[in-house]
Amino acid sequence: MRQYILPKTFKGESSLVLSGKESQYLIKVLRLKEGQHILGRDQGGITYQLTIEKIGKQECTLSCIAVNEDASVQTTDALPSYTGPYPNLTLMQCLCKGKKEEQIVRQATEIGVKEIVLVQSRYCIPDLSGKSEKALGNRFERLDRQVKEALQQSGSPLSTEIYPEIIPLTELSKWWDNRGPALFFHQSNRNEPQKTLHELFESLPIDTPIALLVGPEGGFSEEECSTLEDEGWTPVLLRTNILRSETAGIYALSAIQTIMTEKSY
Amino acid sequence: MRQYILPKTFKGESSLVLSGKESQYLIKVLRLKEGQHILGRDQGGITYQLTIEKIGKQECTLSCIAVNEDASVQTTDALPSYTGPYPNLTLMQCLCKGKKEEQIVRQATEIGVKEIVLVQSRYCIPDLSGKSEKALGNRFERLDRQVKEALQQSGSPLSTEIYPEIIPLTELSKWWDNRGPALFFHQSNRNEPQKTLHELFESLPIDTPIALLVGPEGGFSEEECSTLEDEGWTPVLLRTNILRSETAGIYALSAIQTIMTEKSY
Repeated sequence: MRQYILPKTFKGESSLVLSGKESQYLIKVLRLKEGQHILGRDQGGITYQLTIEKIGKQECTLSCIAVNEDASVQTTDALPSYTGPYPNLTLMQCLCKGKKEEQIVRQATEIGVKEIVLVQSRYCIPDLSGKSEKALGNRFERLDRQVKEALQQSGSPLSTEIYPEIIPLTELSKWWDNRGPALFFHQSNRNEPQKTLHELFESLPIDTPIALLVGPEGGFSEEECSTLEDEGWTPVLLRTNILRSETAGIYALSAIQTIMTEKSY
Repeated sequence: MRQYILPKTFKGESSLVLSGKESQYLIKVLRLKEGQHILGRDQGGITYQLTIEKIGKQECTLSCIAVNEDASVQTTDALPSYTGPYPNLTLMQCLCKGKKEEQIVRQATEIGVKEIVLVQSRYCIPDLSGKSEKALGNRFERLDRQVKEALQQSGSPLSTEIYPEIIPLTELSKWWDNRGPALFFHQSNRNEPQKTLHELFESLPIDTPIALLVGPEGGFSEEECSTLEDEGWTPVLLRTNILRSETAGIYALSAIQTIMTEKSY
């Protein structure tokens, strides 16, 4: 079922007035009428049954009742989509041009990635190291908007988050801190034979944190690949064609999510 | 490795002069120099070793030698990507808005879909039934351009084709003619339990023709789902969130290609 992501200012009040775009989303896009319900989720992941109490000219009033489980929420838009469990996937995406990055974030959130981290590597085309704080802030704001829209449309129970800083590839291992298996996808000559995604994931517990690192449009350098391997990252050559950066992450997320939701325990 | 898709007019000549955008792709985008090689593929799927013999101002001259296998082609851009085998997947995509359709075709071709068929169903937002032949021709031309670019960039050995007509959903079973398993992805209440993608595909021979039908932005109607089931289509509820039409096809292709290249025989 679709859901409404509550504003950051919402702190569990029993009634909420929305105006502007927020109101428009519920009334014009989802076409909800007075008396109808929708699932709400706040920034902390708590779910609410929202009821449209009143529709005004530029605003609408909702009543909000916190609920324990999604299952108990009466909604008008009750599509019986998959409700979990989900694997715990972190997408580490080397910087791409703005529009591509937005597409990646949108699709990864839809699928149900837990966290997205932007990474600066050697062959990234955008070099953001000299950018002002304001330009970087705008970039993250645009990506956050994609996340919010995708969460609403996809009904994802994961509160996908974008890590609010760009991490240099050289500091990524330290940042990840061995939370779980870490993979990188490559097109270069690594040691054979490499494990398949099934060998890596089909008997892993579904909640194991997994890091998936996707290179930039120009790929990883030989040196970057060697360093990652020395630091314990697993190289994976996907059994497909040469994928663009914006397709590789979605491919990997789809394949691994399917293996883990169908096979792991 | 990347490859160059030869023009439709190419009939196996030993030398070929390219001008305009075609020449620019090799010289400016791939940055090939005189004496360097690239893999070529003609419209029938035959591969050629192409050598840049001469670079002129607005054109370049290639020599072309037909070869039996990709493996024997000396190329300057020799990335060791996966070389097969590939599953035999037909994506049946209900009509989406133009830009989304182009993105789907681009990504599906990159991944290595065999054929793409556009389908008109009840809730498709674009209704092309009243469009002129010229408008439809332009639509297919734009999609063919996406296919060509994606084949070149991804080095796909499959000559992905777009079926040149839009097929109404009601005629799709007749068109597919039981060539192999046919699936549709849905969000509605079907009979449980449904088979997982692994149960459906992991022990199927990899060259089995498989049809994957993805609904439009508005989904399938209950009646459409029932009819498809009566005609022998298998309903599949992906174990993920509600995906937009442009993500659902890529998700399914990625998951099924991974299962079949890693598991099937």
